[in-house]
Amino acid sequence: MENFTFYNPVKIIFGKGEIAKLTDEIPIDKRILLLYGGGSIKRNTVYDQVIQALKEHDVIAFGGIEANPHYETLMKAVQIVKDKKIDFLLSVGGGSVLDGTKFIAAAVKYSSDPWNFMQNWDSIKDAMPLGAVLTLPATGSEMNCGAVITKAATQEKLAFRTPVVFPQFSILDPTTTFTLPPRQTANGVIDTFVHVTEQYLTFPVNAPLQDRLAESILLTLLEEGPKVMANSHDYDARANIMWCATMGLNGLLRLGVPTDWATHVIGHELTAKCGLDHGQTLAVILPSLLYIKRENKREKLLQYAERVWQLTSGDEDARVLAVIEKTREFFESFGVKTRLSEYKVSKDVIPSMLRSYENHGFVALGERQDINLKEIEEILMYSL
Amino acid sequence: MENFTFYNPVKIIFGKGEIAKLTDEIPIDKRILLLYGGGSIKRNTVYDQVIQALKEHDVIAFGGIEANPHYETLMKAVQIVKDKKIDFLLSVGGGSVLDGTKFIAAAVKYSSDPWNFMQNWDSIKDAMPLGAVLTLPATGSEMNCGAVITKAATQEKLAFRTPVVFPQFSILDPTTTFTLPPRQTANGVIDTFVHVTEQYLTFPVNAPLQDRLAESILLTLLEEGPKVMANSHDYDARANIMWCATMGLNGLLRLGVPTDWATHVIGHELTAKCGLDHGQTLAVILPSLLYIKRENKREKLLQYAERVWQLTSGDEDARVLAVIEKTREFFESFGVKTRLSEYKVSKDVIPSMLRSYENHGFVALGERQDINLKEIEEILMYSL
Repeated sequence: MENFTFYNPVKIIFGKGEIAKLTDEIPIDKRILLLYGGGSIKRNTVYDQVIQALKEHDVIAFGGIEANPHYETLMKAVQIVKDKKIDFLLSVGGGSVLDGTKFIAAAVKYSSDPWNFMQNWDSIKDAMPLGAVLTLPATGSEMNCGAVITKAATQEKLAFRTPVVFPQFSILDPTTTFTLPPRQTANGVIDTFVHVTEQYLTFPVNAPLQDRLAESILLTLLEEGPKVMANSHDYDARANIMWCATMGLNGLLRLGVPTDWATHVIGHELTAKCGLDHGQTLAVILPSLLYIKRENKREKLLQYAERVWQLTSGDEDARVLAVIEKTREFFESFGVKTRLSEYKVSKDVIPSMLRSYENHGFVALGERQDINLKEIEEILMYSL
Repeated sequence: MENFTFYNPVKIIFGKGEIAKLTDEIPIDKRILLLYGGGSIKRNTVYDQVIQALKEHDVIAFGGIEANPHYETLMKAVQIVKDKKIDFLLSVGGGSVLDGTKFIAAAVKYSSDPWNFMQNWDSIKDAMPLGAVLTLPATGSEMNCGAVITKAATQEKLAFRTPVVFPQFSILDPTTTFTLPPRQTANGVIDTFVHVTEQYLTFPVNAPLQDRLAESILLTLLEEGPKVMANSHDYDARANIMWCATMGLNGLLRLGVPTDWATHVIGHELTAKCGLDHGQTLAVILPSLLYIKRENKREKLLQYAERVWQLTSGDEDARVLAVIEKTREFFESFGVKTRLSEYKVSKDVIPSMLRSYENHGFVALGERQDINLKEIEEILMYSL
């Protein structure tokens, strides 16, 4: 096991009816900016529950934060925070709204153009306090200090991470996910699955507890994922998926082990350039990446085959190929396509993606830092 | 799954050589009281490493905190804190030293006799800041806000828990455990094992991730425990055991599931009355408790039999009995006896134990609150 540091001060409040506890989590003298997305929280009861819980508070609402939240939109909220003397940010929605809220929290305290800090995380010294009511299990943003932001003007999608944007609390009520469209439910399961594989399918370093924790989440997704697709109101299944999503990216899995975030990095660029859903990009890239890097990841792929998929017969090469195929089939069982051609994306997009990496000072990816631009091209070609 | 709240702000710094980071974790203007136990940290290099890391700080040392730390000893440290205007407490040692440090941190800020708060946790409003260098994986105290304290004068051993005594940081260097006596290593593995079963062997509530996390720790203890007994300097095995101990009682396992702390509650009384090691009491009580409560715990015992011990043949009753026996054998494989008679404890002690519970306002134990004094007597009789 490698040395590690772990710190995660987010308070998680989990379960049905827990939105009512909001009032205890935000001091009564705080002026709150409630941030949300496209308005689904107004169609289900979430918005009303939040307003009811905060009826003694001073609350201003700001809607319209996009999936893959736009820098341009978020900067409007930054101006409102300053104009209205807001002192607490409350994200109500999925990972995009929450990522946007983290960006706003840091941007308000940043002295120059906040887009600058996306490639200079250490320059972020302070942020406003924030909290979240989560309505879509997927990104894990509710219990970490990272965020992914898109600049529409330049089609850039970049991540940042800084401990000053940990939410003070996140309220997770699984019933808020009952009315999610199946496509979003499916994308969320896949996002969680890939977060786990990115911290697990690397090379072994004798960290059996971390391995088993990763396998625990994958096995639970295999069992519970089909249940939420079959019955959108299955409380326990929704709760189990929601907790898997949080545990999948709260930092525990990566402790003392190598990681490989290449699937997300390539996926972000595909969303920025071609508009695919985040979950769709992962369903496309992960099987291709595992195939291209199968020798590097051989030992862990065999362990994954045995412990998660019970694949123990056949020679090693056959098992490696079989488990990659099982992974692809799992994604497709949620109705998510795993080939770029099925999204009408051709190889013509590849050169501009590679140029984009070069423009952002590309550093090789993968647990061995050996996924260079040529290999990204191979992975994308294999994904067509 | 039941509703839950989770909050754990402890910063964990894990790995060989990490004690040197102490200097960054405590502000330079703090006057530190370094608390330790019987002096083993002076025989290995831990004390020297701590002093070296804090060579720019103002440090006073206080040694002699016992296993099962005594209220009487700790109150002497409270006086030193007040006299010397100490403003940071640093625990260097195992769970007993750390539990004692938590008690001191709260006691210094408490207006009446601190022993009063052991049965009135809500009356604790504030505590001094504290941190830890952990040298014995067992209690999980390094990443939680609980502690167990003994009053020598009355042979009472009681627990308290309050969020104000979370350590700010805990440094876990597995190499500090190389020189532990085998008895302490064994007790630590058993303590961890029992913490996990107390949050797992109850009744099912459809919380598959929590179940698998518990099983992950048990399986890792089964594999790694014998390795540390066979080779005290096996770094990875020591690291894996250490991380299991922390993860076993940092609050994650109990989220949304029933718990049964009866083994610890009975064990504490056995230590107070008869002087058995904490780990020894658990090795005695757990198999008896599982046997007496086997119908209540039937479904989870069968799951435990299958997933942790691969016991799948035979009828259900036979599997339940077999897995209890496997658990007993596991403890005995570490050289820890599992019968009271082997510790020269007779049934004569039982009446005074039961009286002690009555004196402290006994509330029935177990995941169904049905372990009353009569059942505690049965469990103890079966443990003879």
